[in-house]
Amino acid sequence: MGATRAQVAREALDRLVVDVPDFPEPGVVFKDITPLLADHDGLTAVVQALADAGRDADGATVVDKVVGMEARGFILGAPVALALGAGFVPVRKAGKLPREAHAVSYALEYGEATLELHRDAIAPGERVLLVDDVLATGGTVKAAGELVAACGGTPVAVAVLMELGFLDGRAVVGDLPVHSLAVI
Amino acid sequence: MGATRAQVAREALDRLVVDVPDFPEPGVVFKDITPLLADHDGLTAVVQALADAGRDADGATVVDKVVGMEARGFILGAPVALALGAGFVPVRKAGKLPREAHAVSYALEYGEATLELHRDAIAPGERVLLVDDVLATGGTVKAAGELVAACGGTPVAVAVLMELGFLDGRAVVGDLPVHSLAVI
Repeated sequence: MGATRAQVAREALDRLVVDVPDFPEPGVVFKDITPLLADHDGLTAVVQALADAGRDADGATVVDKVVGMEARGFILGAPVALALGAGFVPVRKAGKLPREAHAVSYALEYGEATLELHRDAIAPGERVLLVDDVLATGGTVKAAGELVAACGGTPVAVAVLMELGFLDGRAVVGDLPVHSLAVI
Repeated sequence: MGATRAQVAREALDRLVVDVPDFPEPGVVFKDITPLLADHDGLTAVVQALADAGRDADGATVVDKVVGMEARGFILGAPVALALGAGFVPVRKAGKLPREAHAVSYALEYGEATLELHRDAIAPGERVLLVDDVLATGGTVKAAGELVAACGGTPVAVAVLMELGFLDGRAVVGDLPVHSLAVI
């Protein structure tokens, strides 16, 4: 029996993600996913595994839109949307979206930020998968979920490559199911 | 006979890209691609047409890596890389990449910027397709090409959704072939 998609993705993460100490500030260990992105097979593996968070047990897509958070969530979220037959919607940093937008401010692992989402980006009733590279404090995911809800949509799950378990972002995210390819 | 991929992509652009006047500053008409990204069929069409810039006449992939420029180039570049069987490499704004990087500063249509690329992101001799949403003054593409060359790679083409013909970015880009799905 072959390895599952989750196992193949986990192997790619273990092999290709690089720890960079003291970036962007002293004491933080940054997870550099660029070697994973540059590896076609590795990128394919993690995109397929992330997309499974938007499928039911029979493999049918259960989301209408995939939201990716600026900027690394863009790289992963767009291919996940294509794999699921869904549209892609960017949640952006303040001032980047040109039309009327909802905005939420929140605390980051280091610093703070405001995220925005076009008011017409999600139609009322649409089901949404949130995609990002890392779940850290959970602030980014929580803000994105609030933005989707402000549009009238329903966030149904969040899919990330890695979850920093020691920061307990799941507690901040609340009831939203978190699909992490690796907990570290 | 059916429409070509380029024709299908052009129809999607015409239907789904929204002009936003006076953004990000007075006198600039911003091309908002978010409605195109949110439309699964539209996104699929433009990704397939952009990927053709990395194929030869027989449909074989002729690039090793696809470079996407932060941030909208991430959304398009990653799926193009997957379509081509290539790896994806982000060119980022200053200070975002955690390891040793090459840097190039340049003038934008409005303002200026510095772009960076990890020194080991492109191996010497690798062939690279550059992907972005819009070719405006050409400064971003020129800088990205210089970064690829600094790694020892060869930029072989640039693929964009739209080219703002009146800004004559092609003159800045030089000999690099530009594949635009629409010239406006």
